[in-house]
Amino acid sequence: MSFKRYSIARIAGDGIGPEVIGEASKILEATGNKWNFAIEWVDYPFGADYYLRTGETLPSSAIEEMASCHALFLGAVGDPRVKPGILERGILLNLRFHFDQYVNLRPAKSYPKVPLPIEIKGGKTLDTLVVRENTEDFYIGIGGKTEAGHIDLDLAAKRKLYSIHGKLTGDFEGKIEGAFQLGIASEPGIRRVTAYACEAAKSRGEEVITLVSKSNALPQIYGFWENMAKDEAQQHGVEVSVINVDAMCYHLVRRPDLYNVILAPNMFGDIVSDLLAGLTGGLGVAAGADIGDSLSMFEPIHGSAPDIAGTKKANPLAAILSGALLLDHLGEKGAAASIEKAVCDFLKGTEVKRMPIEFGGEGTASSVGEDILARLH
Amino acid sequence: MSFKRYSIARIAGDGIGPEVIGEASKILEATGNKWNFAIEWVDYPFGADYYLRTGETLPSSAIEEMASCHALFLGAVGDPRVKPGILERGILLNLRFHFDQYVNLRPAKSYPKVPLPIEIKGGKTLDTLVVRENTEDFYIGIGGKTEAGHIDLDLAAKRKLYSIHGKLTGDFEGKIEGAFQLGIASEPGIRRVTAYACEAAKSRGEEVITLVSKSNALPQIYGFWENMAKDEAQQHGVEVSVINVDAMCYHLVRRPDLYNVILAPNMFGDIVSDLLAGLTGGLGVAAGADIGDSLSMFEPIHGSAPDIAGTKKANPLAAILSGALLLDHLGEKGAAASIEKAVCDFLKGTEVKRMPIEFGGEGTASSVGEDILARLH
Ligand SMILES: CC(C)[C@H](C(=O)O)[C@@H](O)C(=O)O
Ligand SMILES: CC(C)[C@H](C(=O)O)[C@@H](O)C(=O)O
Repeated sequence: MSFKRYSIARIAGDGIGPEVIGEASKILEATGNKWNFAIEWVDYPFGADYYLRTGETLPSSAIEEMASCHALFLGAVGDPRVKPGILERGILLNLRFHFDQYVNLRPAKSYPKVPLPIEIKGGKTLDTLVVRENTEDFYIGIGGKTEAGHIDLDLAAKRKLYSIHGKLTGDFEGKIEGAFQLGIASEPGIRRVTAYACEAAKSRGEEVITLVSKSNALPQIYGFWENMAKDEAQQHGVEVSVINVDAMCYHLVRRPDLYNVILAPNMFGDIVSDLLAGLTGGLGVAAGADIGDSLSMFEPIHGSAPDIAGTKKANPLAAILSGALLLDHLGEKGAAASIEKAVCDFLKGTEVKRMPIEFGGEGTASSVGEDILARLH
Repeated sequence: MSFKRYSIARIAGDGIGPEVIGEASKILEATGNKWNFAIEWVDYPFGADYYLRTGETLPSSAIEEMASCHALFLGAVGDPRVKPGILERGILLNLRFHFDQYVNLRPAKSYPKVPLPIEIKGGKTLDTLVVRENTEDFYIGIGGKTEAGHIDLDLAAKRKLYSIHGKLTGDFEGKIEGAFQLGIASEPGIRRVTAYACEAAKSRGEEVITLVSKSNALPQIYGFWENMAKDEAQQHGVEVSVINVDAMCYHLVRRPDLYNVILAPNMFGDIVSDLLAGLTGGLGVAAGADIGDSLSMFEPIHGSAPDIAGTKKANPLAAILSGALLLDHLGEKGAAASIEKAVCDFLKGTEVKRMPIEFGGEGTASSVGEDILARLH
């Protein structure tokens, strides 16, 4: 059997990031022993401390270096000492955009014994995959203030697919002060994520994907989305069922079991995947992956939770399950499946006392990590 | 006692619109007898049939005429024979924008015996008020295709607060085809709806409003929103608690009882109010009001439901409760409260068989209407 070595960039980040990434890392390493691979971590200190010390969120030299790694494992960023958004945009969104990670994959699954806020008819469980577009839409960072009768584009915004120059001049009756934001969707941007969603649906035995839209009120961008997605899906033999985002949220809280693969533009995908995380086990078990053709990134959906950092209350399951997605992406399917199984076994079989605190137990990040480790083999 | 006459413009609209507006109208008329007012309906035939016959959604002569009414009562628009969005934008959004109805008010309340998808801890009930900005944000209709390396603004877009002229020229590397959409928020636009939300909170004995935002990813428009809303709220002695829209949806499905007055920009308000409707009694009891300084409009949140139109399955309660909001707005507080009480009495006391079909009964729009009428006095 061949023995592989993976070099994995690691940004533990802020708050509970280091605790949960620490536990998850041990588990990834442990699977390597059984499945014949070794992980070499390449650690980066980015986050609030680094930013406060250096004024930088993510130096471009580091970005270049990371590019040669096999994957990136991220904890969480965000800290009360830093203005909200700085680290999120400077690190998280920056990485997604720089490495053109055009798919944000967010599986929403029921796990055994995890209390659900909604009882699904017939005791059914949830297993939904949200495929979120991750590099376009209103996330491109183009916006600004409308001052003295003009809308000035923030020309610093740069995108891999396109960069925008120029000026939008507006004449305001009465010169009202305001702010604006621009969203863009491109044909290749829609096609590639749709293709991904279609192939994911087919591998789940599904012939329909649900597209979250809002073309009745935002016809230009989302009308275009619908047309392109349908055209692309047809080439994959998949049908697209379109639903407006408001109706989607309504139906998700009433019949969450009706959806299998959900495709969504960036912002709606952000909303719908958090809602689905709320409907399944909560952020404590919600894993995520940012996938592109070069470096892909794996991160729990939860934030840095500075309020519980250091209290040992952090639940490492979401980071551990994100680690499983990472291994799956590297092609280590057996190792990935064994982690997922260990998590399920743990949730099913563990005494209440050792469950994570948010599930009513007294388990700490490290006791939960230990228990999963013990069930791995 | 003085006797008042109200002239109320009425657009019954498409699908189940006429059924539910018909029942609600009878009830509004009946309260007039007791509370000393009369309603004179001014009916307009707008909707799918009218559009298919004339090619017009809402003639400007009619808009001018409506302006002299005391209020507008709307059923629902939308029909499978018309391309989605045409009637919604041509009638519904057109009215909201034309009459500058800057507040979309959406109370989300638990009603007796209405089955809820989520059990709230301690059996608590929900009583949340969503105050949605209704004339700005990404709903201004400005967008278009990015072709041959340019973004061309659709200059037809006209707003009362500002009109935009000019062209945004973009240089695309590789000349990628795409589409864009622009959102704008103005200082007066934010201030007036924030002021409304603050006063609504105070009249409910609350000192905090929750603002739905997303400034970590869309910093320009929502950063501006947060600053302006906080500044305005301070002048009303109210505190603003800011939450990102993804987190808001997450928390709403886990602890929906934690929020009292929710203030939201247009699109997030659309999403959050539908989610809350899903968490309370569903669209069957979700009432709405579009409030401005001239003509205000009252409409159930539900759509035209063409699939059940004519089957007698329509639930008129949302239209009836929207009628109560209309009377309340006219200053007929007693009449409004009596309708709300009759609806609660009906839900509490009626035999299951006469409940609306979606609540497990066999009640039709007209039997439910009759039963409410019987409980009015
Ligand atoms: C029909 C549609 C344009 C409308 C909206 O998005 O505002 C509807 O969803 C609503 O909430 O009244
Ligand atoms: C932190 C924030 C910018 C980010 C997003 O909106 O994408 C987060 O909510 C997520 O979903 O990963």
